[in-house]
Amino acid sequence: MFEQVLIGGRWCASLDAQGSFRAEDPSRVEAIGPAFPISGDADIEAAMRAAVDVAGALNAASPAQIADFLERYAAAIDADADRLVALAHAETALPAEPRLRSVELPRTSNQLRLAAKAVRDYAWTDPVIDTQGGLRAHRAPLNKPVLVFGPNNFPFAFNAIAGSDFASAIAARNPVIAKAHPSHPATSQRLAQLAHTALLEADLPGASVQMLYHFDNALGLAWAGDARLGAIGFTGSRAGGLALKATADKAGVPIYAELSSINPVFMLPGALVERGEALAQEFFASCTMGSGQFCTNPGIVIVPKGEHGDAFVAAATRLFAEAEAKVLFSRGVQQNLARAVASLHAAGAHVLAGGSVGDGYRFQPTLLGVDGDDFVAHAESLQAEAFGPVSLIVRAADLAAMQRIAASFEGNLTGTIYRPSDGGDDSAWQALAPILRNKVGRLIANKMPTGVAVSAAMNHGGPYPSTSHAGFTSVGMPAAIRRFTALHSYDNVPEALLPAELRNRNPGGVQRLVDGRWTDGDVA
Amino acid sequence: MFEQVLIGGRWCASLDAQGSFRAEDPSRVEAIGPAFPISGDADIEAAMRAAVDVAGALNAASPAQIADFLERYAAAIDADADRLVALAHAETALPAEPRLRSVELPRTSNQLRLAAKAVRDYAWTDPVIDTQGGLRAHRAPLNKPVLVFGPNNFPFAFNAIAGSDFASAIAARNPVIAKAHPSHPATSQRLAQLAHTALLEADLPGASVQMLYHFDNALGLAWAGDARLGAIGFTGSRAGGLALKATADKAGVPIYAELSSINPVFMLPGALVERGEALAQEFFASCTMGSGQFCTNPGIVIVPKGEHGDAFVAAATRLFAEAEAKVLFSRGVQQNLARAVASLHAAGAHVLAGGSVGDGYRFQPTLLGVDGDDFVAHAESLQAEAFGPVSLIVRAADLAAMQRIAASFEGNLTGTIYRPSDGGDDSAWQALAPILRNKVGRLIANKMPTGVAVSAAMNHGGPYPSTSHAGFTSVGMPAAIRRFTALHSYDNVPEALLPAELRNRNPGGVQRLVDGRWTDGDVA
Repeated sequence: MFEQVLIGGRWCASLDAQGSFRAEDPSRVEAIGPAFPISGDADIEAAMRAAVDVAGALNAASPAQIADFLERYAAAIDADADRLVALAHAETALPAEPRLRSVELPRTSNQLRLAAKAVRDYAWTDPVIDTQGGLRAHRAPLNKPVLVFGPNNFPFAFNAIAGSDFASAIAARNPVIAKAHPSHPATSQRLAQLAHTALLEADLPGASVQMLYHFDNALGLAWAGDARLGAIGFTGSRAGGLALKATADKAGVPIYAELSSINPVFMLPGALVERGEALAQEFFASCTMGSGQFCTNPGIVIVPKGEHGDAFVAAATRLFAEAEAKVLFSRGVQQNLARAVASLHAAGAHVLAGGSVGDGYRFQPTLLGVDGDDFVAHAESLQAEAFGPVSLIVRAADLAAMQRIAASFEGNLTGTIYRPSDGGDDSAWQALAPILRNKVGRLIANKMPTGVAVSAAMNHGGPYPSTSHAGFTSVGMPAAIRRFTALHSYDNVPEALLPAELRNRNPGGVQRLVDGRWTDGDVA
Repeated sequence: MFEQVLIGGRWCASLDAQGSFRAEDPSRVEAIGPAFPISGDADIEAAMRAAVDVAGALNAASPAQIADFLERYAAAIDADADRLVALAHAETALPAEPRLRSVELPRTSNQLRLAAKAVRDYAWTDPVIDTQGGLRAHRAPLNKPVLVFGPNNFPFAFNAIAGSDFASAIAARNPVIAKAHPSHPATSQRLAQLAHTALLEADLPGASVQMLYHFDNALGLAWAGDARLGAIGFTGSRAGGLALKATADKAGVPIYAELSSINPVFMLPGALVERGEALAQEFFASCTMGSGQFCTNPGIVIVPKGEHGDAFVAAATRLFAEAEAKVLFSRGVQQNLARAVASLHAAGAHVLAGGSVGDGYRFQPTLLGVDGDDFVAHAESLQAEAFGPVSLIVRAADLAAMQRIAASFEGNLTGTIYRPSDGGDDSAWQALAPILRNKVGRLIANKMPTGVAVSAAMNHGGPYPSTSHAGFTSVGMPAAIRRFTALHSYDNVPEALLPAELRNRNPGGVQRLVDGRWTDGDVA
């Protein structure tokens, strides 16, 4: 009847389907594909038990096996690109080219390979050796399942069964229970099939990875408070994430939640003098790409008052006004976006272009404007995230106004400052950057925030409430892996009983902090 | 009238004292020293505002200044040892020698110096450079105050104004608001005077450090939920810590709470054959030192059944029975301990020695016993922490029983396995250690858990509920500093606008991860 779920290393019928759902083609508002089960308690409990039971075996697996799995899975995704892109395009309406095929899919397989590399060279384990103290420490698996909630907006790169949280949790040898996003079930199913096959080929326990398509929010909340979990990874709405965080916190389960961000972009005057028209185009492209459904969408742009600022706003307004309505992922996204725009309007922003829903799940690219003082006076309501092709232009009288605006922000994933290439505004940068710096995880110069490179120096994170913890990133290897680890110290333990990578001999050339110095050599 | 509090860089009268309290000499049950104010909302709010206001200036201070402060403070503590030891001895009844003078005080100043070293060499900042991606990242201050709640049991080394949380938070250039423990106010006052003087000598803002002696629990709870805080450090009881954690979690304030631990010690058969009598002595000394008031006290010892196990238990029982009653910190500690022993008894443990309160705040060193199967059957109530010179011996029929016992533990700070020096029990180690390993932060061989070295490879932390997060340690530099940091990434930022330690030139020889390799050189 319904499609099968992946529990305990087997594809099987849902034990207690509470009903079913189908994917939708958002561009045609039409149900597509087969019926997927909505899981109940029995599925959830079965997945949890299987994951708890397999944790020890996965913990004991060799890094080579884990890396082998990640690389096989990456290769399988690349080989299956045609099918995956077709499924994801149909379920999300994201463009097959370049977005899904040339950007997101290779990024996803690359991320799995970078996780494999971090596993092979032990980079995520942070080995520390104190020869005098007889102490050695490293990061180790949680030895418990990690529950991953995937978002709607990246069917591959943040998919609960293939994205960064998945790759990170498995790299640290923890079982993953993936809660797919119901807006792309067939894509998730196909990925899970590839993952499952790769697991078996790598000779890892099949139950290392489980996947359910959907369940009631109330069940998700209850599950997040299950102390058998080692951690939770979540990417999604602030309301949903905070609700999960509340129950996870109560149970002492660490939750890494990426919640919301408006990603302020400051235009210093010299940048607009130099290339205002081009920047308007750059801003428009970043804000409307993927229908603006990015956590790093430039949701607010701070533009100086005066001639060059006016010209930037005029150019941007024209671009937004001339653009076609963009297809969103779902009716829910469309409704939330309409509500968000109405609420910005009610808080004092005026509509410069767009502002209304289109056919089906479409929404007009929308630009709003507000005076800088008004923004600061109503900062809380004017910095609410509007998830979609929407941005708010804030006009700042001077540098001091920009500083006040920056100071009024909540925590964000990113903050950007555009400056002229001749360095003419560097004193303004020096005055503004320290304020913005402490409000964001990634400070960007002269680039829109929408590209998130999978780099060891990336921070896709930021102060609360953009994420649940300012010390961690959800993108970038090996840093993202550290979220799903426990710190393990060995005190006075004889060398033969230590984990191999903490012994004196270091045949693999692992980089280790030995008596305060990083080295890939043996301990003398 | 009352002693002054330290707010906003000045010693001043409490703005709204809700009453006062005096220290007690626990050995004589006698109030000593002057009257200290119990702060109300006004003190708390004033301290918070001053700390919020100073955060930016402290963030902008140079590492050399921060290190200078930490080293001056360390030197001042060493120079003032006579007075500090006298005050702490009077207020805690802990032995002046060796504990306070030769162990805890030098450990405290050494910890401040190690924090200074981590500041000077940037070790806590984890610099990462990705030259191809144009991304650079490091750890940075929270730019918000850190609130530190100190415990009763280490008047120097965990004092809110001098201990590891304090040193860590300041090393990361965050203002500290210290909530001293009311059981040693004069010690805390003296430390705060030294800290304040050292701050001014290092030319840092006086408001970088604030201290209040005491306030009502309800005010503390409310304060922990203040979103102006960057983080909270807490060491104390599980009930108190979980209450603070609940309000901090709700506000998105990271809290690093060390909550409770019973620190299981397993005796493998060969170790008892080899040196059972000596181990009984070692165990007794560790359990009763400092009147057992350690978070790493060996609260449970798993002993094989049979002849050698019986001899160990007999020897330990004799030592406990012959020992004098030990002075505890306060009536509250004594009452809690009596309740804990009664509750272990009610859950099925029998008293082998001691078991009752003595004169004043004294308590008899107490040894209880229980059968391994009974322990597993009532694991929850039998692993409740008894804070004081109390331990529970669990008799295990065989290795499988030891495994079941280990599997029944909650998260702990430490787990210890004693083995014979000839390696004869190594197969038993291999069977037991993986289970214990995942229940504890520090796995120890052949040593009691009560010594916690300040080492880069230490983990004074462990899985929930021993602490609030298994990924962090509260002791050991630079690791403990990372708790009070935010991850900062720089994307496409011109070199001249980067923090000095992320630029290409690396004149200080900072160790940095450049394109995947640790190096202290320049970026080419």
